[in-house]
Amino acid sequence: MSILETISSDNDVFRAYAFWTAVTVIKMLLMSGLTGKNRFKNKTFANPEDTGFAGKNLKAKFGDEDVERVRRAHRNDLENCIPYMIIGLLYVLTNPTSFIAVNVIRIGAISRIVHTVAYLNALQPWRAIGFFGCVAATVFMSVQVLMAFY
Amino acid sequence: MSILETISSDNDVFRAYAFWTAVTVIKMLLMSGLTGKNRFKNKTFANPEDTGFAGKNLKAKFGDEDVERVRRAHRNDLENCIPYMIIGLLYVLTNPTSFIAVNVIRIGAISRIVHTVAYLNALQPWRAIGFFGCVAATVFMSVQVLMAFY
Amino acid sequence: MSILETISSDNDVFRAYAFWTAVTVIKMLLMSGLTGKNRFKNKTFANPEDTGFAGKNLKAKFGDEDVERVRRAHRNDLENCIPYMIIGLLYVLTNPTSFIAVNVIRIGAISRIVHTVAYLNALQPWRAIGFFGCVAATVFMSVQVLMAFY
Repeated sequence: MSILETISSDNDVFRAYAFWTAVTVIKMLLMSGLTGKNRFKNKTFANPEDTGFAGKNLKAKFGDEDVERVRRAHRNDLENCIPYMIIGLLYVLTNPTSFIAVNVIRIGAISRIVHTVAYLNALQPWRAIGFFGCVAATVFMSVQVLMAFY
Repeated sequence: MSILETISSDNDVFRAYAFWTAVTVIKMLLMSGLTGKNRFKNKTFANPEDTGFAGKNLKAKFGDEDVERVRRAHRNDLENCIPYMIIGLLYVLTNPTSFIAVNVIRIGAISRIVHTVAYLNALQPWRAIGFFGCVAATVFMSVQVLMAFY
Repeated sequence: MSILETISSDNDVFRAYAFWTAVTVIKMLLMSGLTGKNRFKNKTFANPEDTGFAGKNLKAKFGDEDVERVRRAHRNDLENCIPYMIIGLLYVLTNPTSFIAVNVIRIGAISRIVHTVAYLNALQPWRAIGFFGCVAATVFMSVQVLMAFY
């Protein structure tokens, strides 16, 4: 199968990759919105020039627990969602079996949604399950890429 | 239109994507250089083994305001430039209208340059405008990808 | 040369890109594992709900030096490995000379392995060499992309 058929909306695997990547990107951007919401709620701004938005004479401050929790979840997204998305495209190019590939891609992205919801609500072991679900999908895809193109 | 014409230097949309992605990558790398410059200027090194470079008997330290400002801007780049670049490639593959796509791609990247300049100089609301400009471009492209490949 | 030959396992440059990207992704994921290992070893958890895993009545805490060193190395990966991987794919599409391209791609990825090993063991100037090796590869590839697609 050539790239003409691989990178095509006729290919279920590519469609799954594109769909779940778009979902993951939007999910990640929502973290910024949530950080912003908590900064306003708790009047915790990291820069002096931002404090004017809250309509009071505030100072920059750090260490608000609500803000920091979202930021930890967001940094974890950077560490995990982005490698998942980058290796995912190369994995699509290995022409994997459709059933396996579509489900590995789904598991990776849905795991990150579980991770985020669990992190924001302090739910263990759900957060760990979400974390390892995406790690497993990313490692699996990476190994397939290594085997296809070494 | 197949990928043969889409991922090609004959396609204005792909060319815009490749050009602005390269600009964004270089812009991001400059943040590391600026962090390093401020670390030397203010003699603020995060690791004991780095302090030797400054030619004095220094200790590792944290929290220098100049260093931290660049680092906040750089982290914001990770959170926003990278999703923009990843979804951008998939957006090119949706074969969007050239005029719209070229301008959405430009707005996303130029917004990040505005964001960086505004962050480093503590300029609001310019920083917010730059931030939301790229978020808007990324969300727009993500929605187009969802609609094309769901 | 069209994308049919470029993005193909017959193309040495693409194979080098896919191989070293998969290695880099796995290397990055190992940083999470190492952070986790140090969190358990030094009983330093960032979230109250995580402390239960260590079987003791612990509080969340921050600033453990072993944990923070791995986290700094990991953040440096986000700032450098990810731009390297994103621009690398576009560089492959510029149809570069095989010998140069394969070696630039190798230098970028191997430099990051040097960086990580050096960071974890506090080895300068090796860490700086690893850092600048990947920056040089990424800038070189970005300039080639700019020249091919401006």
